[in-house]
Order: sequence, then C-alpha cells, then structure tokens
Amino acid sequence: MTSPAQARLPEFLEKMEWELDRVMTFWLQYSHDNVNGGFFTCLGRDGKQYDDLKYCWLQGRQVWMYCKMYNTTPKYHTPEVLAAAKKGGDFLMRHVKNPATGKCNFLVTADGRVVKIQRKIFSECFYMMAMCELARATKDDKYKQEAIKMMDQLQYWVCVDDTGIGRPQARTNMLSEGMIFLDLVEQLTADDATLQEKYAQLEEWSIKQSLQHIQRDGSAILETVSVDGKELPGSAGRLTNPGHAIETGWFLLRCARKYSNIGLTKLALDKFITKPFQSGWDLDNGGLFSFLDVDGLSPTQLEWNMKLWWPHCEALIAFIMAYQETKEDRFLDMFEKVFDYTFSKFIDPDHGEWFGYLSQEGNVTLDFKGGPYKGCYHVPRCLLMCTQILKTILQGN
Amino acid sequence: MTSPAQARLPEFLEKMEWELDRVMTFWLQYSHDNVNGGFFTCLGRDGKQYDDLKYCWLQGRQVWMYCKMYNTTPKYHTPEVLAAAKKGGDFLMRHVKNPATGKCNFLVTADGRVVKIQRKIFSECFYMMAMCELARATKDDKYKQEAIKMMDQLQYWVCVDDTGIGRPQARTNMLSEGMIFLDLVEQLTADDATLQEKYAQLEEWSIKQSLQHIQRDGSAILETVSVDGKELPGSAGRLTNPGHAIETGWFLLRCARKYSNIGLTKLALDKFITKPFQSGWDLDNGGLFSFLDVDGLSPTQLEWNMKLWWPHCEALIAFIMAYQETKEDRFLDMFEKVFDYTFSKFIDPDHGEWFGYLSQEGNVTLDFKGGPYKGCYHVPRCLLMCTQILKTILQGN
Repeated sequence: MTSPAQARLPEFLEKMEWELDRVMTFWLQYSHDNVNGGFFTCLGRDGKQYDDLKYCWLQGRQVWMYCKMYNTTPKYHTPEVLAAAKKGGDFLMRHVKNPATGKCNFLVTADGRVVKIQRKIFSECFYMMAMCELARATKDDKYKQEAIKMMDQLQYWVCVDDTGIGRPQARTNMLSEGMIFLDLVEQLTADDATLQEKYAQLEEWSIKQSLQHIQRDGSAILETVSVDGKELPGSAGRLTNPGHAIETGWFLLRCARKYSNIGLTKLALDKFITKPFQSGWDLDNGGLFSFLDVDGLSPTQLEWNMKLWWPHCEALIAFIMAYQETKEDRFLDMFEKVFDYTFSKFIDPDHGEWFGYLSQEGNVTLDFKGGPYKGCYHVPRCLLMCTQILKTILQGN
Repeated sequence: MTSPAQARLPEFLEKMEWELDRVMTFWLQYSHDNVNGGFFTCLGRDGKQYDDLKYCWLQGRQVWMYCKMYNTTPKYHTPEVLAAAKKGGDFLMRHVKNPATGKCNFLVTADGRVVKIQRKIFSECFYMMAMCELARATKDDKYKQEAIKMMDQLQYWVCVDDTGIGRPQARTNMLSEGMIFLDLVEQLTADDATLQEKYAQLEEWSIKQSLQHIQRDGSAILETVSVDGKELPGSAGRLTNPGHAIETGWFLLRCARKYSNIGLTKLALDKFITKPFQSGWDLDNGGLFSFLDVDGLSPTQLEWNMKLWWPHCEALIAFIMAYQETKEDRFLDMFEKVFDYTFSKFIDPDHGEWFGYLSQEGNVTLDFKGGPYKGCYHVPRCLLMCTQILKTILQGN
C-alpha cells in the first residue's frame, strides 16, 4: 500500500528540481565578480548587492557547489559554471590563504585585502573542499595537491597542535569539528583509494569525535563535550544544536553505508537524526529551533528560537537518505513535515533563492538571500542531493 | 501648567527607587562567590545559578556598581557591600588581568582560570572603572594607581598602537570606543584636578571620535566610520545602534554641562539622543530596535529586531538628563514613553531584576536575569542616576 507521503514522491522531486534551477539561476545571475573573480554573496532579497565584502567560508562553498553541479549535472556542465568556479578557486589561492601560515582569512575586500581572521578552522575547511572539487572539475592536479596540503594542515591543527590557529580557549570536543572532518574525508577520498587509506585514521577519529557527543544515556547530542567525551558543566555543556546533530547524522549515515556498518547506521538514524529532530521541532509553530538547552533552560544565544534555513536543508537530506536506506515510512513522514514547512516558509516566490532567517512564529525577519553565513551552499546542496536520492527511489532502486 | 508627564514625576521616582532596591537585593542575594571572590552572573529567572563561569566585563561592572552604591547611597554604605566589592576587585587583579601584557581575560572559570580572551578592549575598560570606583570606596591608593595604569595602557592601545590587542581588522572608528572613553575619563578624573589635566587631551579625542559618527547630513549616528570620519561602504558602514547612540548622547551631555559647552549640548540632544530615538523606536510594537540599517535594508545581525533591556536603560537616563538640562516637555514625554514600555515589559514581578531580551513584539524570549552580557550594571546604574536626577528636579533645582 502506498502511504500519503509515498504518493507525494513525484511532487517532492518536481518541486525540488524546479527550486534547484531557480536557486542556481539566482547565483549565476547576481553573484559573479567579473573584475576580481570570486563571488559577491551579500545579496538582498532581489539579488541586489548590499555589500561587496567577501566572506571566505562562502567563497569556498560556492566554488565547491559550482564544481559539484558541473561534475554531476549535465545542465550545469557548462563553460560558464566552470569558469566562475576556477576564478573563485584562484581568488581563494591568491587572497584567502596565507601561504606562510596556512591560515585562511574570514573576510576580505572585493579585491582580496584582509579584513578579518577568525580563530577557527572553517575558512580552511571550505578552502579544502573547494580545491578538492575543483580538481575533479578541471582535472588539474595543482588543485588536488592544494587540497591535500590543506587537509594535512587541518589534521595537524586538530589532532596534534592547534597553536597555529591562535585559539586561546581550553580544548574541548566541538561537534562542528568532528562533523566537518567526516565530510572533508569523504570529499577528498571518495574516488581515490590511496587517499582513502591515507586518511582512514582521520576518518576513524572523526567518527569517534562525533559519537562522543551522544550524552544523557543516549537521549541527546550535546554540541560541546570534554576531550575525553564527558558532559561539560554550564550552559555550553548543555547546549544542543538540532541542525548540527542532524547534519552529523547524515554524514555518519553516508559513512556507515560505505562500510556496511549496521551499528553505526543505527546510531546515526536513532541518536543523530531522529532524537534531535523530535526534541528540536517546535510543536507550536513548526520548524527547527536553532539552539536548545538540554535541561529546558534558556539558551544564552539570542537567536535560539529563530528558524534558520540550513537546519531544514540538513533535515531534508537526512530524512530522504534515511528513508532510502531503511524504507521506513516514519522517515518519509518526517521528510514530508520538513518539506511542507520549508517550502511554505523559506521560498521566495518573487525573486528566487530562499529566505534564511525566520522568527519563532515563522515570519521572515532578515530578508536577504546571501549574508555573512548564507551563500550558495546549503540550499543547492540539499536540493541536488534530495533530487538525486528521490530519482533513485522513484526508479525503484 | 503641569503636563501629564510632569504630574507623574513623583510616581517615576517612587517606582524607580523601589526597583533599585529590588534589583540590588537580587544581586546581593544570589551573585556572591564566597569561595573565590567575584560574582556569579549567570543567574536564571529566579536567581538560580545556571553556569559558574565568570564573564569579566560583568565582574568589573559589578565592582563598579557596588562601589557607586556604597559611595552615593547611605542605605548601601554597608560593610557587606564594600567587602563584596573588594573581593571582586581582588579577583579582577588576580585572575582577570595578565600582568605581563595588561590584557584582560573575557571569560574565566569560577576560580579564575582563563577560558577566553577577546581581541577587544572592553574587559580592560571595565577593569579600569572597577579600580577607579573601588579607590573611592576604600580610599586605598593601590586601586587608584591600578586604574591609572590601565587607563594609560588603554590610551596607548587606541591612540598609538593597537597591536597588543591582537586585532587583525583594519582600523576603523567604532562608536563604542569613543563613547566608552568619554565615560572612563569622567570616572577617573571627576574629583581630581591633576588627573583632569592629564587626561584632557584624551577627553577631547573621545569627543572628536564620537562626533565623527554624525553622518548623512546630521540625520544619523552611524556605528562605525572610517578613521577620518567618513561613511564606510557596505552593511557595517550603514549600521546604526540606537542604544549606543543614545548612551553616547548622555555621556556627551554630561561632558558638555561640565564645560558649559552649548554647542556640544545641542549636538548631544539633537543628534545623539533625539534623532536615534525617533528612528530607533518601533512604532508598531513599542521599544527600541537593537540595530537598524540607515537605508532601511535588513541588518545582518540576527537580533536586530529584538528589544534589549540596556538601550531602554540608556534612554531613560538620557531623557531625564535632557529634561533636567532643558526643562523641555518633549524630553519628559519621551522619558514617559520609554518608562511605560520598560516598566511594563522588562520587570519581573515575581523574582526581581529585569528580563533582558524581548522579541520584536515585546515577549520575553530569554528569561535569565544575568548572562554573558547582562549583569549588575545597566539596570541599577539607570535606576540610581534617574532617581538622583528625579529628586533634584522634584526639589526644584
């Protein structure tokens, strides 16, 4: 028997394909810096640029996304997409990475002068991802070597000595780090057995780091734990980020499938995808909260109750992947719930791309399409992956 | 003839005196760390501690506030208040300041081990203020010398060379810096002619820095301008923070009164207090927005539309001071408007102290009384200053 959600599978696919085109069209139309290379990502509701500063996470992410589209989707396998990605990659190499230290900038001017450097590793992570996918798109080995060099630098910082990052904090295990390394390893090694072997230990480390966040007798994924995997005291120790947990969930699920690891599959589905969704979903208004305190206290993050676009993108990927893996209706039902919320709240019917920031009640409170942390990444990645998986499901595979 | 707002002056005074006692009682009851000295400031709605980390801005601010109460208010001129302030001051000297560099920590553990250091100067500013007022309370010169030493260090960083702060950003003129130096100079030099002379140049610098933020033909106070006082491009250049502008307004007004400077008085009243209030007040829901883009675009700060406690505290001080100075009803009317909003929205009738964070519609969204940026400072400073001024007004002076 076909469930109501199963009956909607073709609708989901059709709407997501349509959106993917609208979203890519938006970035292709409004974001290219034809003078300096790279991308303008501070774009208003109608695509108009409201700032020409370049947030470097988003530079790396857009290069990656363009290359991914180029490499996987015939419609986007065009000289225009490739040229923009290459110019973006060259901008990253020239203006984002400091060749002496390996550190990447966080924010630069349109022509690449440094404005801000974070004491974090994410500019570097997205630099690595950009180089890695650009190597596949161009078949140019210099990008691959650059990706490997950055990966080794990152591995050194997080596994050996992080003084180069300039972090003054006491070391903790942050979910974002284990999580992103799961993805980095997958990106870099997917089609290269030698690299897969080289980074096997790092992959194991990433899995172990991620699983340490399962706390409270398995009922919660805590965002930050001690380096030996214990709950930390205070607000920071009790903090949960449903979107991060769910994103880690599908990274772990993808990894578990690769090794046919049933135990890891179960942990990914139960602990990282299902439970954080159940506790993170706003029963009154719909949508995923940005942060919650596991004891129900008030988080100290002012935006804790806002509904951001990216956790919903991650949830869509996680649930369709979970459904594909298990064929269990409950995952498709959760997908349907997130799909209906997302497609009714985040989409802008007038100008394309999605809104990023809603109030708890689901009203748009910041109406730009690109900003310091929102670029050409979560939405098209979600739509690309979901359409790929939906096609496979509908073909009965 | 007595206006409706004038008729309410005794009511304003009575309610503010009552609140001042409730607020001070809250901190005296819940915040003292009797083991290590200093203050617990992560306190829930009912005063219960939800984190024992110590945010150092708030350590300095609470020492200052306790000393100010001790020095000005007979009811709080008690050994208990003084002892807590001294223990707080000693905690600051032992655990917050790095004696080798002069840099202060941003966040430390309950027993004073460093957790986080900011690349900003505000921990140092509040350290200076604490030492300065502690010297007055104790008559102990060591605190005064410590205050002067930190003031000189701060002056060097902002006027000569800021490499010691570790800021990677290109230099700009941030309103927060000129503004806080206006207050620091006033705090340190108020009763010392020698110091007044020593820091006269710094005071002039602070005024000049602040006035450079008057932009757009005098219609707006922009939060960040170039070092030569020009509007900067992009979001950061268009950003306004009504609370900061208004706070700077009363710092300037106080300074202008000291020198009977009519031109500066007018600038403070018109440009810093009146206009930012008019553009920053939410006509639909009441309350001051946290951030606005001067061109009406969406700010990139997620909390731009939230109503925070401190801008309302600053507006109350600014308007009652403006009314005292000018006797113009319009300022008392604005005071009344902010008073009614503040006293109906921020006060917690059940547990004392004020809520800090409301949604655009005026609902409490984070219910703690103390957090990373909210401690024993803005509310009691506002209530102390307003009651002092209201008394003077009611006595017909």
